[in-house]
Amino acid sequence: LTSEPALFGGIYARGAAAGEVTDRAWLQAMLDVEAALAGACAAEGLIPEAAAAEIAGACQAERFDLTQLGRQAAANATPVVGLVTALRAAVSEPVRPHVHLGATSQDVMDTALMLIAERALTPLLDDAAGAADAAARLAEEHRRAPMIGRTLLQQALPVTFGLRAAGWLVGIDAARARLAQVRDHELAVQMGGPVGARSPAVGARVATALGLTEPVLPWQPIRLRPVNLAAALGAFSGVLAKIARDVTLLAQQEVAECREGGGPGRGGSSAMAHKHNPVGAVSVLACTKRTPGLVSTALACMEQEHERAAGAWQAEWGTHTELLALTGSAAAWARELLENLIVDPERMAANLAAAPTADAPMPDGTDELIQRALEAHRR
Amino acid sequence: LTSEPALFGGIYARGAAAGEVTDRAWLQAMLDVEAALAGACAAEGLIPEAAAAEIAGACQAERFDLTQLGRQAAANATPVVGLVTALRAAVSEPVRPHVHLGATSQDVMDTALMLIAERALTPLLDDAAGAADAAARLAEEHRRAPMIGRTLLQQALPVTFGLRAAGWLVGIDAARARLAQVRDHELAVQMGGPVGARSPAVGARVATALGLTEPVLPWQPIRLRPVNLAAALGAFSGVLAKIARDVTLLAQQEVAECREGGGPGRGGSSAMAHKHNPVGAVSVLACTKRTPGLVSTALACMEQEHERAAGAWQAEWGTHTELLALTGSAAAWARELLENLIVDPERMAANLAAAPTADAPMPDGTDELIQRALEAHRR
Amino acid sequence: LTSEPALFGGIYARGAAAGEVTDRAWLQAMLDVEAALAGACAAEGLIPEAAAAEIAGACQAERFDLTQLGRQAAANATPVVGLVTALRAAVSEPVRPHVHLGATSQDVMDTALMLIAERALTPLLDDAAGAADAAARLAEEHRRAPMIGRTLLQQALPVTFGLRAAGWLVGIDAARARLAQVRDHELAVQMGGPVGARSPAVGARVATALGLTEPVLPWQPIRLRPVNLAAALGAFSGVLAKIARDVTLLAQQEVAECREGGGPGRGGSSAMAHKHNPVGAVSVLACTKRTPGLVSTALACMEQEHERAAGAWQAEWGTHTELLALTGSAAAWARELLENLIVDPERMAANLAAAPTADAPMPDGTDELIQRALEAHRR
Amino acid sequence: LTSEPALFGGIYARGAAAGEVTDRAWLQAMLDVEAALAGACAAEGLIPEAAAAEIAGACQAERFDLTQLGRQAAANATPVVGLVTALRAAVSEPVRPHVHLGATSQDVMDTALMLIAERALTPLLDDAAGAADAAARLAEEHRRAPMIGRTLLQQALPVTFGLRAAGWLVGIDAARARLAQVRDHELAVQMGGPVGARSPAVGARVATALGLTEPVLPWQPIRLRPVNLAAALGAFSGVLAKIARDVTLLAQQEVAECREGGGPGRGGSSAMAHKHNPVGAVSVLACTKRTPGLVSTALACMEQEHERAAGAWQAEWGTHTELLALTGSAAAWARELLENLIVDPERMAANLAAAPTADAPMPDGTDELIQRALEAHRR
Repeated sequence: LTSEPALFGGIYARGAAAGEVTDRAWLQAMLDVEAALAGACAAEGLIPEAAAAEIAGACQAERFDLTQLGRQAAANATPVVGLVTALRAAVSEPVRPHVHLGATSQDVMDTALMLIAERALTPLLDDAAGAADAAARLAEEHRRAPMIGRTLLQQALPVTFGLRAAGWLVGIDAARARLAQVRDHELAVQMGGPVGARSPAVGARVATALGLTEPVLPWQPIRLRPVNLAAALGAFSGVLAKIARDVTLLAQQEVAECREGGGPGRGGSSAMAHKHNPVGAVSVLACTKRTPGLVSTALACMEQEHERAAGAWQAEWGTHTELLALTGSAAAWARELLENLIVDPERMAANLAAAPTADAPMPDGTDELIQRALEAHRR
Repeated sequence: LTSEPALFGGIYARGAAAGEVTDRAWLQAMLDVEAALAGACAAEGLIPEAAAAEIAGACQAERFDLTQLGRQAAANATPVVGLVTALRAAVSEPVRPHVHLGATSQDVMDTALMLIAERALTPLLDDAAGAADAAARLAEEHRRAPMIGRTLLQQALPVTFGLRAAGWLVGIDAARARLAQVRDHELAVQMGGPVGARSPAVGARVATALGLTEPVLPWQPIRLRPVNLAAALGAFSGVLAKIARDVTLLAQQEVAECREGGGPGRGGSSAMAHKHNPVGAVSVLACTKRTPGLVSTALACMEQEHERAAGAWQAEWGTHTELLALTGSAAAWARELLENLIVDPERMAANLAAAPTADAPMPDGTDELIQRALEAHRR
Repeated sequence: LTSEPALFGGIYARGAAAGEVTDRAWLQAMLDVEAALAGACAAEGLIPEAAAAEIAGACQAERFDLTQLGRQAAANATPVVGLVTALRAAVSEPVRPHVHLGATSQDVMDTALMLIAERALTPLLDDAAGAADAAARLAEEHRRAPMIGRTLLQQALPVTFGLRAAGWLVGIDAARARLAQVRDHELAVQMGGPVGARSPAVGARVATALGLTEPVLPWQPIRLRPVNLAAALGAFSGVLAKIARDVTLLAQQEVAECREGGGPGRGGSSAMAHKHNPVGAVSVLACTKRTPGLVSTALACMEQEHERAAGAWQAEWGTHTELLALTGSAAAWARELLENLIVDPERMAANLAAAPTADAPMPDGTDELIQRALEAHRR
Repeated sequence: LTSEPALFGGIYARGAAAGEVTDRAWLQAMLDVEAALAGACAAEGLIPEAAAAEIAGACQAERFDLTQLGRQAAANATPVVGLVTALRAAVSEPVRPHVHLGATSQDVMDTALMLIAERALTPLLDDAAGAADAAARLAEEHRRAPMIGRTLLQQALPVTFGLRAAGWLVGIDAARARLAQVRDHELAVQMGGPVGARSPAVGARVATALGLTEPVLPWQPIRLRPVNLAAALGAFSGVLAKIARDVTLLAQQEVAECREGGGPGRGGSSAMAHKHNPVGAVSVLACTKRTPGLVSTALACMEQEHERAAGAWQAEWGTHTELLALTGSAAAWARELLENLIVDPERMAANLAAAPTADAPMPDGTDELIQRALEAHRR
């Protein structure tokens, strides 16, 4: 069930999060929604328990034909119509009317998106935590390693590499706290029926079954939830971009204060055998450069008509899939980058000694600030 | 100190929030930072109390020449160098060295941005609350007004206008809760000195004086705070876009279920005297169409180099100014729109009666869901 | 070699253009570049003709393992290093040094992108031409069908549906003319070697062999060519969005002036059997809503460092792939939509008769303008 | 009539192009359209020649109150209604009915936008030509100055600074050629009347009078023309971003191969007297970072309803104004940057000598390619 890391996959689909947003993972999530819906309908006495059990048993992605579903998506502007048809065909005839009871395509797609997000955020937050821990170790280890601070890409005043790493740490920690908040409070079931007016009892049970939040109202054309997810992914991605940009700059041979570790054969060139490219940082940036445009798409898609949008909703599916895959990949790359970063304090000292402000005193807050960052991380 | 609502100003700079992000408001915010910094330095015993008082007395925007500061901004890629020079000239000679003590341009600009945001968010959130109250009244008043629900711009099944308004209400309430969270927790002082390593004591006092949060670390190149602000503005803007889009659709003469009130002379045309244009909704959309691109700029600018970025930081000033002005304007327009919306339940009933699903029952959750939305709003 | 239209594929990967940008198509394009390079090197006397022939014979995508290449892409931040290794393994030992002679990863990726674009633009422009022809037929057929013109979603003054269709026609024609200009003049070979300084003789031969333009200079970090492609795709996509938006509005039951044809079973709903959704228009919009954000990514990626960028270049691969697939899909949908659009002149007349301006004269240019549009199209 | 370079104006509103897009410049352009319309109506015999002359005489921006127009824009979602009222009040009573004859707000706004663009592009293209000439001089002067080429921010192989400058040159030349093409062929009059169906005779005369192109059809809801302008500005802006990024990297003290000239007092810091910041490059980037998001807004706004859009059109005014001002400012900064760039060939040689590939031969095409770039520039 993992993603096939084909051609560009090694770069854009790295880590476990990307594997949670493949077409197959989407299909399974959609089936999980149908199964949970059947269970909720049974608990509410709307369908027989046995029917719910049979439906749940049929809800396995490997039984369905993704290509066929894609073709049917074209006829209906949603893959759910085809899926419901196929799911009905996969159960015994008396059970068929009990499939998808009272639900609409958007119930399935939106709840599946929330499930997908929840499943991708778990490994993503794990990689984020690993990256934060690695940054904390760097801050601790190089707490008193002086380097020249640089502003506008010009040497400015002394600082320590520990403080630089502490800045990375605080950024990762704040961004992942917001992502965790989104995961815990924004990922809500959608179970409004055709026009968003279904009684909330069924939805409440589906939410419990799937580990999602129950919303005040069905949120069909009010797209705050996916947008809050997108924005939190974009912000986290931006923090990783800052770190990766720093690494590319510190790894310049003329600076040489950091370089990427990560084993032999890493960072080769098709033309120049001597090169040692910062492939982790480059790959983080290859992912993070793409997230701002995707977030803008998610935001622009909030302008949705009436009870369900004609186009703006359907445009979200690919957009959020990409955002989760790219941010998840960036997190996996960033963790690996930080866990293997090779720091050269001697070169830092030498660069500082050569700077016009070599004799300036270390700013008075340097050590205290690192301490604050480490303490905040441990909490 | 209010914005001059010139040419396009009536559309893009409506309401009080836009008046808080003018050049003059920025200048006053920068001066407020310098005054608070002087006060903090005095309290820490770094400069005489009398010097701080004299500096504070000089920190009045009307004493400074915006055009001149603009010219000096060109020479330094920041308006702060010129401002500090002018502020020093505005105090007595012995006090001059006490101006801007230990601070850097970014301390002033970033803290001023946070102040500007705080000042703009207050009226913006007031307009948001007014818009929510108006939506709540519409939900209550039209709680049992049946209308045809529409999906993909096609008539679907019956619903009530009350539920539509309840959806708007829940969207506004959730978006403004996030904005309030950003205002209360994300707007932090920046007082890191040249390389972000100043001891936090002065910054803590400045934060208290200005009513801002104290951060764990100076956040100079970690741009989560402005980005979280931008994303919350963009998300709120998206909710308003959804409402305005609905109004333009419901106001079509062929639908005629709603129209804008707001007094005579409103909504005229330069060519057609009979027209009654939905100017409030159009103006909301004129603002909200512009926010997604601005949020993407803020996100892309997170990739900042070393201790201070060369370009990505400076690009933020105009971006956040626009975001606050446009979202604030959209909020003012939306409130006015909702407070004056004229709903036609008879036309709704007639349209429903003519729909292919006229005989379908009202969905079972309609009334209960409105109740939930109203209760959540009252909390 | 076609794309697998899995889950969302029916919507986002419709038509032949999308099939030209799959991972497999990319791989074949990369191999075509290697084959052309070998041929050019042989013609320049740099390698034996027989070696070039053997290399060309090995350059078949089905011989290579996409998943393996994806894994190697991770180690090098480019899939080319792995490909060159695999290609060398696929030829006899004496020929191996002649593979990829003097080239760098970027030569292969950029030239492959240009090839991919050329191959996708051919069916895309064919669909665009079909869409324009269909719009021309609508303009001709409904040249004298009066309808109420609508501005700001309000009834304004009479016009004809022929003029509306003529507007669509002129938009499609202008956008595809620009796309054809990009295809014919912007798609240039990249053959600059490691730092963009290779003598142009080899590149000129590769350009001829692949049907691409020869540039003045290798354009490695000057990304105008991919950006001009992206912008032309985005602009064409925007024209299609306008048409699809119009169709969704005209297809509202309250307006009912147009509806989508296209055969039985089209436009169903998973919940409401009576519905006839405008799936073509919705699918166009599902694609076109996503292009502006992607174009902004392409533009932001122009800020590239030195002779080859660390991140901004690698971010382009997925971005341009998506842009080609989505715009190609939108073109296929739009053609089908326009070729099957069902227009109801009687309803148009009835709506006009009910409008407040029913008695206003038809504007004086209506017919003449349609004639101009049709003549311009025929040229 | 120039822009007031207030607070951020020195950075974001540099050069003459920004002065052509102020509120006052917009107002004058709108009045120029009214004057040309009156002249065209007189020439067509629709109004007396004397009336046209009186109207033209009244069309002077200083006679009108921008603030008042802004207030009226709020009531009508366009500033034109107020302007026409004021213009009628400014002429004698018998002439009043001849003002704005047969036109609609969009005719005035769109044609004014095209005029504004034409007026801003003239100084912008002049700065672009100056920047290209400066790059050509650098290419010529440093044609044989070896430097280490850098890929992925790593030292790669030798090249010359002349070739780097030649790359900049080719980029500027190609981007300005496209901008000139847009200016000469895309800037078209809009004179379609209320629903875009006015006979083209009047529009043709207005086009001639204002030096604009005559379109096949009024293009009211077909936004290719403003989008092509926006995309060309964005692409040019991207080329300037690449150059500025290079300068910030080459100006790092650890590299020190270039630095900005430009006179004493330039590039100071509010905290560090020794610093020499690359303010020109930073200011270019402060502008160019903002253009991709604005282009995405322009593209997203192409989805316009019926004969005139409710929101998407009105959102363009500020967007295009910003795009012209920012790109014009970036051009002014880039020209100044390139004309004053101080290159250090000795440091380049020293850096090359210290590189691992110091002994590699200069790539064979280096000199020939510079020659091609210079010849192409001279043509």
